[in-house]
Amino acid sequence: MKLALAQTNPTVGDLVANTDRILECAETAGRAGADLTIFPELAISGYPPLDLIQTAGYLEANEAQLQRIAYQSKSLDTALAVGYCGTAGEEGKAANCVGCIQHGEIVLRQRKILLPTYDVFEEARYFVSGGRPRVWNLAGTRIGFTICEDVWNDKQFWERSRYARDPVEELAAQGIDLLVNMSASPYHMGKRGFRLDMFRATATRHGVSTVLVNQAGGNDQLVFDGSSFALDAGGNLRARADSFREDLVFWSMGSDGDIRGCDWSSSDEDREVEAVYDALVMGTRDYVTKCGFSTAIIGLSGGIDSSLTVALATEALGAANVMGVAMPGPYSSEGSLTDARHTAEALGVRLETIGIGPVFGAFLNQLDPLFRGTEPNVAEENLQARLRGGILMALSNKFDGLVLTTGNKSELAVGYCTLYGDMCGGLAVISDVPKILAYKLAAVANRRNPDAIPTSVLTKPPSAELRPDQKDSDSLPPYEVMDPILRLYIEENLSVSAIADQLGQPVKLVQDIARLVDRNEYKRQQAAPGLRVTSKAFGLGRRIPIAHQFVR
Amino acid sequence: MKLALAQTNPTVGDLVANTDRILECAETAGRAGADLTIFPELAISGYPPLDLIQTAGYLEANEAQLQRIAYQSKSLDTALAVGYCGTAGEEGKAANCVGCIQHGEIVLRQRKILLPTYDVFEEARYFVSGGRPRVWNLAGTRIGFTICEDVWNDKQFWERSRYARDPVEELAAQGIDLLVNMSASPYHMGKRGFRLDMFRATATRHGVSTVLVNQAGGNDQLVFDGSSFALDAGGNLRARADSFREDLVFWSMGSDGDIRGCDWSSSDEDREVEAVYDALVMGTRDYVTKCGFSTAIIGLSGGIDSSLTVALATEALGAANVMGVAMPGPYSSEGSLTDARHTAEALGVRLETIGIGPVFGAFLNQLDPLFRGTEPNVAEENLQARLRGGILMALSNKFDGLVLTTGNKSELAVGYCTLYGDMCGGLAVISDVPKILAYKLAAVANRRNPDAIPTSVLTKPPSAELRPDQKDSDSLPPYEVMDPILRLYIEENLSVSAIADQLGQPVKLVQDIARLVDRNEYKRQQAAPGLRVTSKAFGLGRRIPIAHQFVR
Repeated sequence: MKLALAQTNPTVGDLVANTDRILECAETAGRAGADLTIFPELAISGYPPLDLIQTAGYLEANEAQLQRIAYQSKSLDTALAVGYCGTAGEEGKAANCVGCIQHGEIVLRQRKILLPTYDVFEEARYFVSGGRPRVWNLAGTRIGFTICEDVWNDKQFWERSRYARDPVEELAAQGIDLLVNMSASPYHMGKRGFRLDMFRATATRHGVSTVLVNQAGGNDQLVFDGSSFALDAGGNLRARADSFREDLVFWSMGSDGDIRGCDWSSSDEDREVEAVYDALVMGTRDYVTKCGFSTAIIGLSGGIDSSLTVALATEALGAANVMGVAMPGPYSSEGSLTDARHTAEALGVRLETIGIGPVFGAFLNQLDPLFRGTEPNVAEENLQARLRGGILMALSNKFDGLVLTTGNKSELAVGYCTLYGDMCGGLAVISDVPKILAYKLAAVANRRNPDAIPTSVLTKPPSAELRPDQKDSDSLPPYEVMDPILRLYIEENLSVSAIADQLGQPVKLVQDIARLVDRNEYKRQQAAPGLRVTSKAFGLGRRIPIAHQFVR
Repeated sequence: MKLALAQTNPTVGDLVANTDRILECAETAGRAGADLTIFPELAISGYPPLDLIQTAGYLEANEAQLQRIAYQSKSLDTALAVGYCGTAGEEGKAANCVGCIQHGEIVLRQRKILLPTYDVFEEARYFVSGGRPRVWNLAGTRIGFTICEDVWNDKQFWERSRYARDPVEELAAQGIDLLVNMSASPYHMGKRGFRLDMFRATATRHGVSTVLVNQAGGNDQLVFDGSSFALDAGGNLRARADSFREDLVFWSMGSDGDIRGCDWSSSDEDREVEAVYDALVMGTRDYVTKCGFSTAIIGLSGGIDSSLTVALATEALGAANVMGVAMPGPYSSEGSLTDARHTAEALGVRLETIGIGPVFGAFLNQLDPLFRGTEPNVAEENLQARLRGGILMALSNKFDGLVLTTGNKSELAVGYCTLYGDMCGGLAVISDVPKILAYKLAAVANRRNPDAIPTSVLTKPPSAELRPDQKDSDSLPPYEVMDPILRLYIEENLSVSAIADQLGQPVKLVQDIARLVDRNEYKRQQAAPGLRVTSKAFGLGRRIPIAHQFVR
């Protein structure tokens, strides 16, 4: 049996275009002699559709496209397995379904059984669970279908099982030759290797060939890496699709199939940093283009974060589609402007320079009747950031480019950023990238674009340059100290004392940082959507009240 | 048996303070001779705690406060029923629990059975469901406890049942004299009357006295009305707490109890508009104070929305704690400034006037090298709004008041508002108030503060005043036409054609409005949290992708 793993990149809700692409892939696969072509979870809909599922006509439109696939694939030699938003029972509740199509007929429909409802997932909000899964006999091969989470509950692999049922066991008990998993499994650092380990455990435990087909592409905050693969019954990798792009790979069971992309089976930090870079490039490209834009506008200060963001955007959209804007203010160093010019030139990106001095002066003048006699404070600092935000948005409104924000996760965590200032923009490209990781990504940028980010940017102490001689370290501990604390607080959800213990840091220091994180929730709830690359990003998957008083 | 309905207003996560208040109420109720004092759902935690439930120590801290209540209430004559975040089983998963306390002992713990996971609720994300509920025999009275959603699944009341189980049936089958429901049931227009009807149906169906104790107060976007009550076995109202504030009312079963607040059992538009007004006042007060602020800053343009917002804030915080800021620009009418002054004076609120003209001029001058030769467009319009936002935020940063935004739901729906401009602020007071309702609320404001909002504000055509002679009606249909369309699209989730049919409006018009709603999702995802007063608000309970292409 020859399988085609069709790792498509659907746009949420663009059902006709997603289906067109499915049919294209099916035709290519059919011509190449595939017996079965497998698509990702919710391939017709795109994942995650969120509340669109509950809007009038969404399920009917999914069904219509599934019927169209059946009709239009009639003459193809390949059978198809396609994910779609279906219905369950007479009440027409939604279900996350796979539909199997052969010779123009929908021969099997099966619902997802395990519905993840944690972090970025909220499937219990939308879907009803499936009953006992049936085995499909395709030309003598007994195939069991699972959808994403359905394979994430192996009692032997996990210390604790999250669900009572194990759909893989239910299928294996019926006797299968091939286990198929259709997923929309979002990327975060290290997940590809983890996923492979887990699938290997499943394949070897049940002694069954196992295939994963995972969605590629970015949809809002989520970046799907694809990285589909096929394992034989011994858990050996026999086919692999590329990561962070669409792909179509083939595997004839019993032989070797296409192997693409790099080997990510073992942990290797450099490779994983490259992966984050690729994830951010793809996420940026997809967000910008799926929102209907082709160009991006970025405030380029000559600091590490904005330099990195410009490099990422340039790879995502092409240099001709990126505009950098330097906006020197009264406390900007000459070096920063020089560095900004260097980076723009090295990347081939247009740079405009618009000083904020005169506007800042006019503003302070207007505020003078009220501000006279007060000490300069965060009001004057934030004002500069807000004037810059105003310039970027004016350029966006005039020339129709999407503004990308440049703040990193460490800053966003502790509120070291200005709401309506440097937080202005449609996408927060690196808002899930801790500061230390930003430096590692800058090294990737410089490998791909030799010396685009000059050494001075990488070595100078980070500064917002909003008051004379300001340094981040005036108000924050060094990022080497802060980033590990933030990781344990945000990603691991630990208490202050547990973090202090684990890192050997003073309780007071951890406490101060934790309070900053808590107090700045209001900023994050008005932040632009950010691309998720860690196991816990701000945004969709982390829901913290603003006006709360819990202290851990 | 004498019952005390203790309708408290907890702050999410402020476990010690919430518990202090519980103990105060218990003492008062005990002194008044109550046999049982009943508190809302999650009274120790405050609702909704969201992901705090999953942070280190949250469940343990809830248990500690429950134990404290038991210990410190030992000498009281009243038994207690208290909602808290508990655990279930050995794995320590979270559960939404009631704990019953008598003579210092926790004598019964019961978990919520039905876990709402729709709209603003996501309890399947957090909680495990309870097993068969037990009946508590207190001094000869057989009491059955339910938590909020547990009573919302009566097969006879609803056309369709959402859940397989009916906890009320499970309790009634065991024989009960009293059904208690502890809730955190958020307000929306008409909900109080609906809730009462539903409880009446339950009381009469099972022939059992029924008591609701509902949380009061605002927590972020949700406003809890309280409106607790007691029904006898015939479904007759025997006690009622006030709405939109803490309250403690008593009911001796078999006689009449305290009756407070107004009668909201039948539908009456004027009364419901008053309720929305009260909800917004309470929601504003609680958000501002629970965030640690005491004063508010509001851009007062002399239009209906900002005038209404200032009136609401004044009632919420006191006139001395509200600062209005008039920020006339090149296209502001003299009348607007006069109206703003009138309203500020009538309400006794400080008004500062800071023109944006000079700053706008300086800004255009800086942009001139890039903008020269282009036609004035939305760039110049939005810039004015953003300068105003910058002024308000500068005042906030300098004088520590919370900026309240003034946009209404109709504008937010179609994107007739400026991101980082008039959308700047910590709370969007009327962002769930459609424009037509804003006029009705302004009438309430004028009844409570005679003629605070002058007739000219109520009668002039709405305008953003961002270009010469601009009117909202230049780019939008009249609000009388648009608001009903928006309601069916957003609250009822209908298709374009169904809306056009139902309202007798052209399909093209409905389609255009629907497209505006869809395309402006990116603005709403960066909007300040808004107070929910309709059955479907933007924010927490409505999750729509930004980069989607679904057309209904």
